Amino acid sequence: MGLTQKQGLLITFEGIDGSGKSTQLALCAQALQASGQSVVITRNPGGTPFGMELREILLHSKQTVFPMSELLLFIADRAQHMDEVVFPALAQGKMVLCDRHMDSTLAYQGYGRGLSIETIQELNQIAIQGKKPDLTLLFDADPHVLAQRVTQRGQADRLEGEKAEFHRKVREGFLALAQQEPERIHIFNALDSQQALHQQVMQVLAAQRQPLKTL
Amino acid sequence: MGLTQKQGLLITFEGIDGSGKSTQLALCAQALQASGQSVVITRNPGGTPFGMELREILLHSKQTVFPMSELLLFIADRAQHMDEVVFPALAQGKMVLCDRHMDSTLAYQGYGRGLSIETIQELNQIAIQGKKPDLTLLFDADPHVLAQRVTQRGQADRLEGEKAEFHRKVREGFLALAQQEPERIHIFNALDSQQALHQQVMQVLAAQRQPLKTL
Repeated sequence: MGLTQKQGLLITFEGIDGSGKSTQLALCAQALQASGQSVVITRNPGGTPFGMELREILLHSKQTVFPMSELLLFIADRAQHMDEVVFPALAQGKMVLCDRHMDSTLAYQGYGRGLSIETIQELNQIAIQGKKPDLTLLFDADPHVLAQRVTQRGQADRLEGEKAEFHRKVREGFLALAQQEPERIHIFNALDSQQALHQQVMQVLAAQRQPLKTL
Repeated sequence: MGLTQKQGLLITFEGIDGSGKSTQLALCAQALQASGQSVVITRNPGGTPFGMELREILLHSKQTVFPMSELLLFIADRAQHMDEVVFPALAQGKMVLCDRHMDSTLAYQGYGRGLSIETIQELNQIAIQGKKPDLTLLFDADPHVLAQRVTQRGQADRLEGEKAEFHRKVREGFLALAQQEPERIHIFNALDSQQALHQQVMQVLAAQRQPLKTL
């Protein structure tokens, strides 16, 4: 059996853009699959066909979208994703690796945009139906340094003014969440090398799964 | 001044399809406008450009939409509608006449589809931001009789089996809501004549506005 197990796990990868979370998700998926584990790679928003339609509205609508309506679309996407992707996969004993999840909504819409944290928590609860991530990997670093990395791969501009302030708040939001739930949310230094980060990730996963194996 | 007033009112028209609520809304709007009142005619869902995009997804998406995600889209539509249409109009002293609103979501998704009433109430509160309709006009009748009227105008089939049972539950939901809030929700017999209903509607509106005028 090795790393395989009967009960699936929901593992979420969080952090601001440029933090390397998507790369680490891919490396982690490869390692798990190599060990014989069934893995589902997915994301919020847009992890379902319905979610793709919502993502299209969120990213490309020419209409004014008010902050609360935007938040509710992220939540609708998450609710659908849990029902359509996560719960069925967990029931089959799969490991679900999800690029962004409930903590991103708290960090971006709550800490970043200033919507009520309490309201977002209420909405997240409705979307996840009691199923929090078993493990959340947070890739953290100074937004300015990460922005330089994003710029280097040609995906965005440097952080300036309002944008820098927003990303600073989002980062602090993520760190506040990690402080509230240290057992679930593990912080990694996003400036470590890819290989070093991958090793740390696999160590955290092994520790998480250990108790299940010894039951 | 007559019927005009400084503070706007949100008046919602509720009932199952075929109940004549949209006709009564139009007649009511005409009468108010004739008396010099500024009126906004609108609806849930789809009362904003953004809401039209959501309505498109709700009605025509080829993707599976789970009940909770559907509910959240209705709530997103409502939140946007309050911010974009209702609050600005009320602030200008207008009368907002809305075809379906929060009670439809409770009656259809809650009593009809069986989603948690408590959850829907929580979500409605988030969408309306504390602003319930000042007045709700509920047009009630036996769904079978109303279905025959809908069939006569060629818009739908007769109610049979599951469909009839669903509409019966929705009707009972509306009536339960009216019982819980008799001061806000007024029940009309949808089988009364158009003209008789219109007179009753205008009487209820006059009674609602009286206290404001004597302050």
